[in-house]
Amino acid sequence: MNSNHSGDEIERLIDLLAKLPGLGPRSGRRVALALIRKRETLLAPLAKAMAEVADTVAECSVCGAIDTRDPCGICCDPARSGAQLCVVEQAGDLWAMERAGAFKGRYHVLGGVLSALDGVSPEDLRIPDLAARVKADGVEEVILALNATIDGTTTAHYIADALEGTGASLSTLAQGVPIGGELDYLDDGTIMAALRARKAF
Amino acid sequence: MNSNHSGDEIERLIDLLAKLPGLGPRSGRRVALALIRKRETLLAPLAKAMAEVADTVAECSVCGAIDTRDPCGICCDPARSGAQLCVVEQAGDLWAMERAGAFKGRYHVLGGVLSALDGVSPEDLRIPDLAARVKADGVEEVILALNATIDGTTTAHYIADALEGTGASLSTLAQGVPIGGELDYLDDGTIMAALRARKAF
Repeated sequence: MNSNHSGDEIERLIDLLAKLPGLGPRSGRRVALALIRKRETLLAPLAKAMAEVADTVAECSVCGAIDTRDPCGICCDPARSGAQLCVVEQAGDLWAMERAGAFKGRYHVLGGVLSALDGVSPEDLRIPDLAARVKADGVEEVILALNATIDGTTTAHYIADALEGTGASLSTLAQGVPIGGELDYLDDGTIMAALRARKAF
Repeated sequence: MNSNHSGDEIERLIDLLAKLPGLGPRSGRRVALALIRKRETLLAPLAKAMAEVADTVAECSVCGAIDTRDPCGICCDPARSGAQLCVVEQAGDLWAMERAGAFKGRYHVLGGVLSALDGVSPEDLRIPDLAARVKADGVEEVILALNATIDGTTTAHYIADALEGTGASLSTLAQGVPIGGELDYLDDGTIMAALRARKAF
């Protein structure tokens, strides 16, 4: 791939861009060309934004979210209730919850899910932190908003055991037909879960 | 989209990433998360590589290629013959030709194709430069390696007219079945061109 026909700096940029999720060598080149073509409006601002994020962003020491402040904006927000705690796998899931805009409590970001295969244990996942936080802050409800995967469900069960005796009530996101979803395209498990959890119309 | 739940720096990074070709708001967020997760190995080096490219890269004043040197590495290379000149639309096409590794002459990058619809005229495309270069450098062969699109073909015909009387011979890339191509998946125009240009076996 390195043919040195365009300068080492460009080759290095393409190699790094090709490592981004969803990109590869071909789209890396395409992005590099677009960046160079829009040097003033895209390349320079993006380089600056990346350097700023690299310098300022850290994990919130309270909830594990990614933010430029520590504690993060959500943990510091007095308008948000500390009585409700939403447990998510990744910072991206927190962002998705915030886009939905329905939750006004605080978060706890695990940083992954339990996985014997990948050697992920409860200590790797801020689960001990979660139990300590629930006890210390007097949390009333813990909402488990983990992904509806096997690992996510296993982790949810483990957390339920770990929080036993803390006095906090546990809940989990409802499962069913997604808004706009067509039955014909849904998997059998979802249809079964939606049927079991059917409600009066 | 801006909900200020993760710091303005991260929002700005996502907005800029979403403008890259092939990305959008959703994949912009995914890339931003991946960058933040790999801050040391990906985010910081990429920010540095982008800043370096923004500072050093320019169009070659001779051929229009993108390089950190001016004239570019190809124009300066004494091992490459100036008697053959390959005309391409974009710097990305030059990279593609170089990856193929079959051409040992020099290039002329137009920077686009003629388009009445988009108001692209010959003056926007370094075509006058090309004619001057062919005359001044004693170029023997001009290879038109433009895309096989309507605009590309129109531009090729215009260049052929503009180079009339310079004494340089003109050629163009062969059209036919691509290597590994299956007839069933090829369009009719390509099959027709391949049949017309058939050669003895």
